[in-house]
Amino acid sequence: MINITFPDGAVRSYEAGVTAIDIAKSISEGLARKVLAANINGQVWDATRPIQEDATLSLLTWDSKDGQSTFWHSTAHLMAEAVEDMYPGVKFWVGPPVEGGFYYDMDLGDRKMTEEDLQKLEKKMNELARQNNNYIRKEISKKDAVAYFTEKGDEYKLDLLENLNDGEITFYTQGSFTDLCRGPHIPNTGLIKAVKLTNIAGAYWKGDEKNKQLTRLYGVSFPSQKQLDEHLQMLEEAKKRDHRKLGRELGIYTMDEDVGPGLIMWMPNGTVIIEELEKLAKETENAAGYKRVVTPHIAKESMYLTSGHLPYYADSMYPPMEMEGEKYYLKSMNCPHHHKIFAAESKSYRDLPYRIAEYGTVYRYEQSGELFGLMRVRCLHMNDAHIYCTKEQFNDEFRAVNDMYLKYFKIFGIDKYVMRLSLHAPEKLGVKYVNEPVLWTETEEMVRNVLKESNIPYVEVQDEAAFYGPKIDVQIYSVIGREFTLATNQVDFSQGRSFKLEYTTQDNSTDTPLIIHRAPLGTHERFIGFLLEHYAGKLPVWLSPVQVKILPISDKFTEYGKTVLQELKKADIRAEIDDRNEKIGKKIRDTEMMKVPYMLVIGEKEMNEGKVSVRRQGKGDLGAVSIAEFLNTVSTEIKNRSSL
Amino acid sequence: MINITFPDGAVRSYEAGVTAIDIAKSISEGLARKVLAANINGQVWDATRPIQEDATLSLLTWDSKDGQSTFWHSTAHLMAEAVEDMYPGVKFWVGPPVEGGFYYDMDLGDRKMTEEDLQKLEKKMNELARQNNNYIRKEISKKDAVAYFTEKGDEYKLDLLENLNDGEITFYTQGSFTDLCRGPHIPNTGLIKAVKLTNIAGAYWKGDEKNKQLTRLYGVSFPSQKQLDEHLQMLEEAKKRDHRKLGRELGIYTMDEDVGPGLIMWMPNGTVIIEELEKLAKETENAAGYKRVVTPHIAKESMYLTSGHLPYYADSMYPPMEMEGEKYYLKSMNCPHHHKIFAAESKSYRDLPYRIAEYGTVYRYEQSGELFGLMRVRCLHMNDAHIYCTKEQFNDEFRAVNDMYLKYFKIFGIDKYVMRLSLHAPEKLGVKYVNEPVLWTETEEMVRNVLKESNIPYVEVQDEAAFYGPKIDVQIYSVIGREFTLATNQVDFSQGRSFKLEYTTQDNSTDTPLIIHRAPLGTHERFIGFLLEHYAGKLPVWLSPVQVKILPISDKFTEYGKTVLQELKKADIRAEIDDRNEKIGKKIRDTEMMKVPYMLVIGEKEMNEGKVSVRRQGKGDLGAVSIAEFLNTVSTEIKNRSSL
Repeated sequence: MINITFPDGAVRSYEAGVTAIDIAKSISEGLARKVLAANINGQVWDATRPIQEDATLSLLTWDSKDGQSTFWHSTAHLMAEAVEDMYPGVKFWVGPPVEGGFYYDMDLGDRKMTEEDLQKLEKKMNELARQNNNYIRKEISKKDAVAYFTEKGDEYKLDLLENLNDGEITFYTQGSFTDLCRGPHIPNTGLIKAVKLTNIAGAYWKGDEKNKQLTRLYGVSFPSQKQLDEHLQMLEEAKKRDHRKLGRELGIYTMDEDVGPGLIMWMPNGTVIIEELEKLAKETENAAGYKRVVTPHIAKESMYLTSGHLPYYADSMYPPMEMEGEKYYLKSMNCPHHHKIFAAESKSYRDLPYRIAEYGTVYRYEQSGELFGLMRVRCLHMNDAHIYCTKEQFNDEFRAVNDMYLKYFKIFGIDKYVMRLSLHAPEKLGVKYVNEPVLWTETEEMVRNVLKESNIPYVEVQDEAAFYGPKIDVQIYSVIGREFTLATNQVDFSQGRSFKLEYTTQDNSTDTPLIIHRAPLGTHERFIGFLLEHYAGKLPVWLSPVQVKILPISDKFTEYGKTVLQELKKADIRAEIDDRNEKIGKKIRDTEMMKVPYMLVIGEKEMNEGKVSVRRQGKGDLGAVSIAEFLNTVSTEIKNRSSL
Repeated sequence: MINITFPDGAVRSYEAGVTAIDIAKSISEGLARKVLAANINGQVWDATRPIQEDATLSLLTWDSKDGQSTFWHSTAHLMAEAVEDMYPGVKFWVGPPVEGGFYYDMDLGDRKMTEEDLQKLEKKMNELARQNNNYIRKEISKKDAVAYFTEKGDEYKLDLLENLNDGEITFYTQGSFTDLCRGPHIPNTGLIKAVKLTNIAGAYWKGDEKNKQLTRLYGVSFPSQKQLDEHLQMLEEAKKRDHRKLGRELGIYTMDEDVGPGLIMWMPNGTVIIEELEKLAKETENAAGYKRVVTPHIAKESMYLTSGHLPYYADSMYPPMEMEGEKYYLKSMNCPHHHKIFAAESKSYRDLPYRIAEYGTVYRYEQSGELFGLMRVRCLHMNDAHIYCTKEQFNDEFRAVNDMYLKYFKIFGIDKYVMRLSLHAPEKLGVKYVNEPVLWTETEEMVRNVLKESNIPYVEVQDEAAFYGPKIDVQIYSVIGREFTLATNQVDFSQGRSFKLEYTTQDNSTDTPLIIHRAPLGTHERFIGFLLEHYAGKLPVWLSPVQVKILPISDKFTEYGKTVLQELKKADIRAEIDDRNEKIGKKIRDTEMMKVPYMLVIGEKEMNEGKVSVRRQGKGDLGAVSIAEFLNTVSTEIKNRSSL
């Protein structure tokens, strides 16, 4: 008998050789039907693979990332089976799951694949899926594996085999298709209920343009047709809400060849959003007892040797500037500078918790090919702060940080979010993780408790902590259900020592503070990108670059319009007047294009009665009200940071 | 006869060979007694040197920089005469005027000079000054000059002579002392009424530590004893107000070896000042129709080739980072990025004037030896903005910028300031200056008119404009009379073309905008350094990091103190409570040390009556008032940005 430990800590005994599916069935048949794979001792396994020893287990369904990615990986194999059926002699390179689906690279010889072929392929895949074929794992010797692909004449798989060692090679077979693959896979093809092939592209073999160009076929699949339909609709909606399109149309940001890739220049409208976000952050952090600092964007090599960024993080940093025999680096994180500020004046327990915040600009190297609008950039404005506290203060501080996240989520109407608690792996202490078993256990338990007590939805992941402590990755979902990684929230009991940070304790000895790294609003770049999609560009009034547009019906009313404008400006409302010699219809359309929340249409009646006719974006015509009444409505909406 | 043109444009005829002193006498004897030198055709000349041809002339007195520096240069010669008298056989290297005085480097052989010797020297100098000796200029052949110093046995002067050409060599003699010198000098030693030798230091010959160490003797002198006394008192006061000392004591900023020289890290208290200044700037600029932008700190080499920073300004820039076959530079100015933002969307005359502002952080290389506290740094936060306008709009825009300067001066109690209008030199058009004679004349005249109409004190300087247009350097004086260069205000009709900036005119053609570069508050670094000296660290309430400190007389009143604290915080006042178990005397002293403007002392009586006892820094005890009354006083002071 072996002992299986479940996520909730419960332990049950099973016969050696039991599979995850067997275990699921022992709980409920319904559950077993949904199991796609299993996490065994921190590794994702086939749900049908026998377990021979004591293990921790969690069952992976569609609700988990690992479940989805296994599902898509298996669909890539299914697609390959269909392709082989339609294009005999096709040779395959690699076919991994990716963010939002999967692809497979293949060599079709002289044949071309067209959009129409995709529909035929989808039909074939559905047919094959309905055969309910099992994915069968087989360990195979290198010799036999080479023999198999030599006979098949597939030089690509032979190339892959060259880099594999005997004893670690596995084949997976479903139906008539066998692939060299380390797995894992879902139990059978019948789980794949809906398939969509989304794109055909060219891709050089091994990414090298000197090599042959292969055909890359993209797809996505789901356990139900309904999910696929929703997904396609979400993609359609996401296209309309594309932050790059909105960013250009609304004058939010721009980029320039002479400045450089991934380096955002924020235009006036984007800067308004930045400043409103910063104002929110400063108010919030001020109320929470943070102080603010301003630090330079560069530092000497010695600083990043102390912090450990060099050499461990060097690949993500810009190359150095050499000057006066020293190397200077653009900072990729704000922490080392903040540690220096902590250390600049001697500290006692009375000064703790010491919370310092900065909307710091950091520079990170991302490969050109990875850059994407505001989502993947090289210059990031980060809502950063570091909290230096005693062990006793940790719990309250960490809870306060989480509460701050939740406060922000409420303001931005973020209803769906998940926190991912990354833990250490005890067997890697002193190797991958700082060798402080007690501190690890303590801080992980503290973090877990805070999450539980705050009723925050979270998942735990083994062996993904930072080297200096456990961390929480915060994932949020836009209203159309797309996922964004917002920020991380980290506990650090290591850098304090590296930087020799100290405080005098109440009994006059010295101790090293714990450090919390936190950034609830992430970076301006990613968060504003998220907001553009989330609100489809129709920002709440408090965030809108132009809050009110005054539209006189004709020149006759421009004078009165300007009086209204002055009233609005006096009340610190961002207002403009459209005094062009254009028809009111065009003025309204142009204002709608720019997604201005309030339009005030002004004509004879309004002027005579000292009123304004209000059109609210998303609500339509609200009728005529006095200027004072309108001011009151808008000011309240701004002050409360209301969403529509 | 020759024609002499005066600064006001008047022209008078004189005999050829007339001197500036003669001309001064022809105006008034009183004036002639004050003349130290003269500016002839843009060059500083001896006031006693004959003028042979038509010339522009301005008389230089103590009120001008050039007058002062000539005065100090002549005093250096006077000092050399006294030194030679006391140390026969002394050899001299160079003796220039510097900021705030003069020095002379000399080789005393085996002899040492002590502090006491300085007093003897001063006495001797006064004696020699009273001899009223003329400074006599003599043109001399290289041969004769070499013969003179060979006979004297002065290898240092012979070294200097090596690099001079025949025909450009002059000697100056006063009393018994003759020096190789290109001049100019004041008419006679009798003008030097007060002398102070301030310092003896070592200085390697030619600044090379492999060479012999010479003695460098520093001094300062004035046309009256009263001026010297005031100057020494000012230096004494400046020492107390040293921004480096105050910066450390008040927790304003810090620097760190691992970050790098000249790279300021702003501590929490300094950051409060930064944020208040930025708030002021944003309010002011917002009201003046500026929009804000945010740009990265780096750009590619190609951008700085277009802007002309490379190679012309390369020495002042950090070295490049090389990445992906491109060179990236830290920006040393914000203009090129702003030009790119102007160009990002097409513009019409309706969009002009287009004013974009950014508190941009720029990086400039200054030699390590030049770095000085907040005054000379390598990372600068600049109150920058660029205004793109038509020629017709220029006048109003430039006047508005000047008005903004004056508005700021009023807020900060800056009573003394000078603007220095730097003009082009017509003969250098196409060489040192963009070859646009009409635009030069027009813009210079426009700028001059704005200064005149606004009654702004200014001086004109020939041949010191930027290559792209005339500029104004703004000099301000702290309350103790020290001068600070704050910022420049420039007109630019060149970069618009380099960056191909265009707008559509009303008649549907295209034109290039004029650009105004402006930065009324200069940089945070220099301006906060100035403010610390100006206010001796006792900042106005609105700028104070902590505005109110609550001091309970004993633990019994802490609770009530915290209630008061909450009231203050609710009103957005930066308040703290000193709840340490210390005597009230110590609490008051510590609070005074930190220069907190308001202290609220709280005891039995205050608690029972719901009052606070107010001590205002600089005003003393103001008695007990209700919390509401105090809140009202402080809030008004903050809102009005009052100085004490």
